[in-house]
Amino acid sequence: MQVVESVLMELRSRGFNITERDLCRVLRAYSMTDDFWKGVGISEVPVSYVVEVLKELQRAGVLQIGDTIELTPEGHKLCIKKCVLYPENPCESCGGRGIELDDRLKELYRSFVEVSSNRPDAVKEYDQAYVTPETTIYRVAIALYRGDIAGRKVVVLGDDDLVSVAISMLGVAEEVAVVEVDKRLIDFIQDIKRKLDLPLSVFQFDLSDGIPREMRAHFDAFFTDPPETEDALMAFVGCGIDTLRGEGSAGYFGVTRQESSLFKWRRFQKRLLKEYDVVITDIIKNFSEYVAWGYGYEKQDIPPLREKPDVNWFYSYLYRIELLSDMSKGVRYGRIVYQDRENSILG
Amino acid sequence: MQVVESVLMELRSRGFNITERDLCRVLRAYSMTDDFWKGVGISEVPVSYVVEVLKELQRAGVLQIGDTIELTPEGHKLCIKKCVLYPENPCESCGGRGIELDDRLKELYRSFVEVSSNRPDAVKEYDQAYVTPETTIYRVAIALYRGDIAGRKVVVLGDDDLVSVAISMLGVAEEVAVVEVDKRLIDFIQDIKRKLDLPLSVFQFDLSDGIPREMRAHFDAFFTDPPETEDALMAFVGCGIDTLRGEGSAGYFGVTRQESSLFKWRRFQKRLLKEYDVVITDIIKNFSEYVAWGYGYEKQDIPPLREKPDVNWFYSYLYRIELLSDMSKGVRYGRIVYQDRENSILG
Repeated sequence: MQVVESVLMELRSRGFNITERDLCRVLRAYSMTDDFWKGVGISEVPVSYVVEVLKELQRAGVLQIGDTIELTPEGHKLCIKKCVLYPENPCESCGGRGIELDDRLKELYRSFVEVSSNRPDAVKEYDQAYVTPETTIYRVAIALYRGDIAGRKVVVLGDDDLVSVAISMLGVAEEVAVVEVDKRLIDFIQDIKRKLDLPLSVFQFDLSDGIPREMRAHFDAFFTDPPETEDALMAFVGCGIDTLRGEGSAGYFGVTRQESSLFKWRRFQKRLLKEYDVVITDIIKNFSEYVAWGYGYEKQDIPPLREKPDVNWFYSYLYRIELLSDMSKGVRYGRIVYQDRENSILG
Repeated sequence: MQVVESVLMELRSRGFNITERDLCRVLRAYSMTDDFWKGVGISEVPVSYVVEVLKELQRAGVLQIGDTIELTPEGHKLCIKKCVLYPENPCESCGGRGIELDDRLKELYRSFVEVSSNRPDAVKEYDQAYVTPETTIYRVAIALYRGDIAGRKVVVLGDDDLVSVAISMLGVAEEVAVVEVDKRLIDFIQDIKRKLDLPLSVFQFDLSDGIPREMRAHFDAFFTDPPETEDALMAFVGCGIDTLRGEGSAGYFGVTRQESSLFKWRRFQKRLLKEYDVVITDIIKNFSEYVAWGYGYEKQDIPPLREKPDVNWFYSYLYRIELLSDMSKGVRYGRIVYQDRENSILG
């Protein structure tokens, strides 16, 4: 199929590391939806790459970009020939997460929705994008079921998802702490803490300075949701590992496909296993669903990107890692850069 | 808790790399079930380690080993103090796998159960242990949904799970091949192939000799279920990668916690990412459920191990990897050793 090869050649000549499989993923996604944002979510290709692929495919006569994305008859033929893909079929009951909420966690969900309803909006300054309340409770659930919360010391590093609030509301951890740089979130969390009299330690500081000595090698589990440059991933997860007490402690964090190519995933996995004595125990697809955020749309050059999406389209895979020896490197990471070529489009 | 420390010290002095968290996992498991086998499955500690831990815990007065495993009052106290763990709560609807079978796959399940009902037993000679028919169909389902079967060339390396039969019955792959060393399985698969007129290429050979030139760099996806010494894991998965066509091709395989400690998991993950240009895209807990097999029970020295389990207790996590560049190393692995300290007990 000459179209595929010429589109790939063009994009690569402009420095985009886009693969044939990426191109198939994009084509397939828009054979299933005409909504730009849903297509990005389905495709599992970085959003900035999707935009470039769509523009090239339009130039090649394969699709039309308007307020929606429409494959041309030639596009449909190409899709059937190259990308005979079935739709995903995530389990409706658990949203593909593989676990069920028990009654106690369902109750927690209801209370959490109430206390978090007037939460601060996501802002660009800290690369924020928060998850649905359901996602927050499922994160608590999986860590609880894997034995990383009850009777354990837990820390949340950066918490626009309010995981620390949900964990302390559950009331079975030995200790819960949260570190956050955004004053608005700090105030919001402090306010809930006061109202509900939660056992929660709240710290305002910037993770770029690393983990302070007194928080190092102290916790049994950490949660974080890193910005997705390779260095930011390593910095946030590295800070998390720095907080862990030792062998058998665990970390939970999200990595997306919408901001990170599989090339970036690979570089991250290799560095993670090389630089730390950890093992990856779980990688669960689209565990976290993010609420479509409100910044970054003004400067775009194709129509469907110019408006805030009215669907949630952004997901992350949940990683769980476990530490296999006692260690704290006390690393200081320096200024964390939030943007790279794969995630810059809405930044 | 001195019990924990002294038990750990004793076991380590005998060369078992058992961690405090392992010990917690075992204690927790037997606070939830008195069945030896179920406890091994829940604990996620290698079965040979579980046996040693139980014997030491019995010596320390923490539990009693008879036909069942009973915690003493002291054991219950220790469990509450050290291992405040909630039970796992896998989603009942999907068995924790995160995906749903559509109608076509449910129909495939029914036909597959029928044709596979008189399948050969698992034998020790080839380290066999086959999965439930449900698991086989879910393996097909996830690969189908991820775009790795329809219109693709698929190979199954070692197939006591009859995945190749299910895929060729589905009828949407471009090509299906199976490699198997066991003459009984070859005959069984050939027989189904003839009866149902399946488009399936069947090859009998030993993977220790590596992948023959004509099968290298040819397929879009492989499935394998390796024996679990570190070298066997690398050899089977390496053979799989050798069959792959290039960028965007994928591999599916299982790794257990019942035969492999997290230390072995880590060594395997590191080598996999170092030796091959692949990325791990999914690690799904207990995706595969194995039918309790009939060999290995005669020589054991504690009562509950001397009889074949009447429950399924053995699970593997499903790994999916994706290849990021075109490559075939054509590696020859030499004789594959099936046994190490972590998986030897029922070998």
